[in-house]
Amino acid sequence: MKSVEPRIAIERKHPNWIFQVVTADKDGIPNAMPASWVTFASAEPVMMAVSIAFERYTHKVLVNSDDFVLTFPSKDQKEATFYCGKNSGANEDKFKNTNLKAVKANKVNSPLIEDSVACFECKKRGSIDSGDHTIFVGEVVATHVSEKYTEKIYTTEGWHEKGAEGFKTIKEIAGENV
Amino acid sequence: MKSVEPRIAIERKHPNWIFQVVTADKDGIPNAMPASWVTFASAEPVMMAVSIAFERYTHKVLVNSDDFVLTFPSKDQKEATFYCGKNSGANEDKFKNTNLKAVKANKVNSPLIEDSVACFECKKRGSIDSGDHTIFVGEVVATHVSEKYTEKIYTTEGWHEKGAEGFKTIKEIAGENV
Repeated sequence: MKSVEPRIAIERKHPNWIFQVVTADKDGIPNAMPASWVTFASAEPVMMAVSIAFERYTHKVLVNSDDFVLTFPSKDQKEATFYCGKNSGANEDKFKNTNLKAVKANKVNSPLIEDSVACFECKKRGSIDSGDHTIFVGEVVATHVSEKYTEKIYTTEGWHEKGAEGFKTIKEIAGENV
Repeated sequence: MKSVEPRIAIERKHPNWIFQVVTADKDGIPNAMPASWVTFASAEPVMMAVSIAFERYTHKVLVNSDDFVLTFPSKDQKEATFYCGKNSGANEDKFKNTNLKAVKANKVNSPLIEDSVACFECKKRGSIDSGDHTIFVGEVVATHVSEKYTEKIYTTEGWHEKGAEGFKTIKEIAGENV
């Protein structure tokens, strides 16, 4: 074991799953931002938590919203997921500018994203600030899966530089490394 | 897309990373429990968060502790990691009963685990209850990596039944599926 700066230890987190955090503003306009910083947070009821940086447009929406949706993007949503990370919902209608299709959820105002590997509808139950992020905690009130896509995408080291190509399925990662 | 019960959507979370949550009680006795429900939670300072069920011994320790350590287990720690999940630190000295070796940390009382892929020393900065779990938030104050192991282990579907064999490296997962 050797002591290293945080960056070196953090590099070992890859492959790390990635979600889209889907919200709707007060006029119902949907938005999505990719986030790896998501965890399950309760078994009964099922709850999940997501960390969002203070400066994000999604943070501004979530503070004033009662719900959000978490989705696992499929391999056909790599480009769109990266686009959603590069651009801000403050200036862009991401659902107009990508192949992502918003679909009405069952129990929350935030929409699902069609053909996601899985979608989790969450009602906001609490939040706590954590450094430069807020952790938003939600109760999962409805869940959906794609009948077409079962493989989700993960981050790889350097995906920030590589762009959409940096997101890979486990099979794609293994193809490079095994 | 089809609506499904939560269990079906949650199955799609695999492969999901797994950490050991390492603590020390008031007498300095170390303990470790595996947890997948971990996320990064701030960039500057680096912070992480871990969800622990109310009934866990680690929960009891963490409520009264100032710090914890999160580690990525290596493939040679599969059996030990599963043992730590099956047994409670209330009754067992897990470091005596496994091949895990506790190593003094730099800045916290909780120890590192030797030969972990990475270790994150965390000072507790807050917590929030979430259903049947508490999310403990920690600031990462020191980090370490193994010079011997770079591949961490992930959960696979059914790992609760399969035991230690259910934890796999990405290469091992790919060997089965590609």
